[in-house]
Amino acid sequence: MPPPDQAALAAAPRFAAALREALGPAGVITDPVALRPYESDGLTAYRQVPLAVALPRSTAEVAAALRIAHESGIKVVPRGSGTSLSGGALPLADGLLLGLGKLNRILEIDLPNRCAVVQPGVTNLAISHAVAADGYYYAPDPSSQIACSIGGNVAENSGGVHCLKYGLTTNNLLGLEIVLITGEVLRIGGRHLDAGLYDILGLMTGSEGLLGVVTEVTVRLLKKPETARAMMAGFASSEAAGAAVAAIIGAGIIPAGMEMMDRPAIHAAEDFVHAGYPLEAEALLIVELDGPKVEVDDLIARVGAIVASHGGSGLRVSESEAERLTIWAGRKAAFPAVGRISPDYYCMDGTIPRGRLPEVLRRMTQLSAQYGLRVANVFHAGDGNLHPLILYDANKPGELEAAEAFGSDILRLCVEVGGVLTGEHGVGVEKRDLMPTMFGEVDLNQQQRVKCAFDADLLLNPGKVFPTLRRCAELGAMHVRGGQLPHPDLPRF
Amino acid sequence: MPPPDQAALAAAPRFAAALREALGPAGVITDPVALRPYESDGLTAYRQVPLAVALPRSTAEVAAALRIAHESGIKVVPRGSGTSLSGGALPLADGLLLGLGKLNRILEIDLPNRCAVVQPGVTNLAISHAVAADGYYYAPDPSSQIACSIGGNVAENSGGVHCLKYGLTTNNLLGLEIVLITGEVLRIGGRHLDAGLYDILGLMTGSEGLLGVVTEVTVRLLKKPETARAMMAGFASSEAAGAAVAAIIGAGIIPAGMEMMDRPAIHAAEDFVHAGYPLEAEALLIVELDGPKVEVDDLIARVGAIVASHGGSGLRVSESEAERLTIWAGRKAAFPAVGRISPDYYCMDGTIPRGRLPEVLRRMTQLSAQYGLRVANVFHAGDGNLHPLILYDANKPGELEAAEAFGSDILRLCVEVGGVLTGEHGVGVEKRDLMPTMFGEVDLNQQQRVKCAFDADLLLNPGKVFPTLRRCAELGAMHVRGGQLPHPDLPRF
Repeated sequence: MPPPDQAALAAAPRFAAALREALGPAGVITDPVALRPYESDGLTAYRQVPLAVALPRSTAEVAAALRIAHESGIKVVPRGSGTSLSGGALPLADGLLLGLGKLNRILEIDLPNRCAVVQPGVTNLAISHAVAADGYYYAPDPSSQIACSIGGNVAENSGGVHCLKYGLTTNNLLGLEIVLITGEVLRIGGRHLDAGLYDILGLMTGSEGLLGVVTEVTVRLLKKPETARAMMAGFASSEAAGAAVAAIIGAGIIPAGMEMMDRPAIHAAEDFVHAGYPLEAEALLIVELDGPKVEVDDLIARVGAIVASHGGSGLRVSESEAERLTIWAGRKAAFPAVGRISPDYYCMDGTIPRGRLPEVLRRMTQLSAQYGLRVANVFHAGDGNLHPLILYDANKPGELEAAEAFGSDILRLCVEVGGVLTGEHGVGVEKRDLMPTMFGEVDLNQQQRVKCAFDADLLLNPGKVFPTLRRCAELGAMHVRGGQLPHPDLPRF
Repeated sequence: MPPPDQAALAAAPRFAAALREALGPAGVITDPVALRPYESDGLTAYRQVPLAVALPRSTAEVAAALRIAHESGIKVVPRGSGTSLSGGALPLADGLLLGLGKLNRILEIDLPNRCAVVQPGVTNLAISHAVAADGYYYAPDPSSQIACSIGGNVAENSGGVHCLKYGLTTNNLLGLEIVLITGEVLRIGGRHLDAGLYDILGLMTGSEGLLGVVTEVTVRLLKKPETARAMMAGFASSEAAGAAVAAIIGAGIIPAGMEMMDRPAIHAAEDFVHAGYPLEAEALLIVELDGPKVEVDDLIARVGAIVASHGGSGLRVSESEAERLTIWAGRKAAFPAVGRISPDYYCMDGTIPRGRLPEVLRRMTQLSAQYGLRVANVFHAGDGNLHPLILYDANKPGELEAAEAFGSDILRLCVEVGGVLTGEHGVGVEKRDLMPTMFGEVDLNQQQRVKCAFDADLLLNPGKVFPTLRRCAELGAMHVRGGQLPHPDLPRF
């Protein structure tokens, strides 16, 4: 992070006074002790107390806070529930932290149109709870769903174990209300398909708080499937499990979820929740199938045959909802389970072509030996989305740095085999400096021109996502044209 | 359209010479007779011969043509197969028409990763044909799929009868190569999920040629379903058919397609293809279900029961692939069938909340009487996407203008009931002037800032989509901030 802007620090008292006038005294925090709880998000290795915290209660208050910040030239970091694993809500010493937690109402449930309109601070799981009695749910299900907010889900384009079949957040949104840094309010989309003009709904989803602040979300609701059943089997190698995954997809079957865990993850989870996982296996595959009962019965038989023909052993298929939940219990608790066997762990998030999984696992094992740090792996296997958990002890000098270097090597490896730096956790501060391994200057400049179209003064969540930010005027200057023909740099054919 | 830019006309000979140097003589057309075939697209009511046509054969040639145009300050209109129904590829008298038809190769078929990499001039249907023998297909299926290009599908975010279950183009894309107006080449996405940074893939999809030129498309391939069966039934009113549609969706069933036709469309189609449609019905409902055989059998029974309980009569379910195609034949031929009963027709494209269908149909009947023009309706009923076909005779003075006014009234009606101006045909020139009925100044300005982030000189397809374009520098000036606190216009609480 660059040193704090001294002008911003000097303007802080006037800025806070203006905020208090707009939001009321309970809506603004400047007391150093009261600011402390906001110093980090889910990426706890990074900490920074913000200049101030604002807690607006309405779209109008969000607009007022942003307008005041814009007028004052003060940076703004939006924050939902603060569960980001990539530091997306890490505060700035010279910036306002804009907490959306008080915008936590479900505004409307519209079952005939199968959607719900909610404020950004509503938790992911609260949406499904609100419509469960009517037989509906909201599909994306990040592991943090009991805590993470839907606004944060939009910012990070969150996924979950069911996104293989039901898509990421971007596939389950119908509309947004966003406030620009100027305080202007945009409404995008609604209860219908494509609306003409540019797809700003898609653009906003996954934009990590750099383009605008989400103040209302219209989500698509799905009817709960008639049946859902989980099955699991152990494999003697991750290659064999990976081949089974490829064969299932290749057969045209899209499971509701398809997850793999490696031996260290299996052991940690089994020790914690006693789900009956096979301790002798090198890889565990969990497949969930959902839909009408007749379809699920058919698919269970087909997937079972594929698993058996690829050497899967100890196949178990849930015969009740309780058994289905038991099969999932270890996977869902994998992160805290690993937390029990190591003082600290660092959760990475990269995506690779499914076929390269065995090679990536082999090289990860080599890196583990090289850095002297253990690693446990859980994957969204159907998507090729890896979550290696690097085990370390922050109290041992150098281990945090080693874990970070190990993690960077894993992400570079993902890119090298044709994958990408992220799956569903965003770039944030965590992967910012790795972006040039994936994106060239033309890409980054064009992406920043989009950023400039929304926030020309670069006040919204600076320091996240982009390794460097150029002044917007400077980027525009690349478009000067001379009116001369032909250009001396023209390619020849 | 504004009068042609005299400077552009004066620069034309030098401009064409530079293009010829880059693309070779066969790649550039300036002869007035040879330009004539390019004067319009699928919206034939509008015609304009372009300044010149360029026909590049590679990404490098597209980049060269755009760079030359940018250096010369010459506007550019990209064109795929020219099947746009909203005039998206209508030329400009002072602009280059950039035809992508020679970029027509399938570059790679990657079945393990279930995707294909194709050039933009490849037709939609050619992709499915190329992978049919292996049991795969590309899902979006616009009625023009035999002719329309995948590049045009990206530009318009095209749909089709199966987009209810399988999504629009934007849901079936994995990656793009695009060339910016500067000639810079961007590669977006690839064979994986979310890639970090902004969702430019979504932004480009449906951007109607105003942001960049697509030179390569990576599409998702789907495994052909084990079974597909179509069913149809007649209803005594569109209200009853609409209620059946709502009940099917409400039961959690997502058919592969769900289409309605009104009495005039039923009669025109039946006279043309003899599909056995019920001539006494006021509305015809066609529902297709696909998936594993056991699932489809189950769904056929459930949909059949819903149809019967809503007064559907003459239920017919396909027992063979030939019978399925017969049921679809009338719907697929609805446009040419209407072309047989009227010298001209004007195809509209709006979207409404499904529940408002009966009201919209009633008011459309009133408008039909008021304008003295017949209208035949086909709908993607599951999506609420209407395609009213307004029948007129261009040789009768005033009928074209009346048809256009009638069409505008229909689209205003769509917006009034909570819908939108477009479904899948784009805005183009056709709906450009109606945009302010849906979008306020804040929306249009923000959308244009996005346009400016890609094309600061407004050279790419100007005159489409936006009712007015402001100079980009002028829009940027809205972001001036004074550093004064608090702003006098701040809202008070």
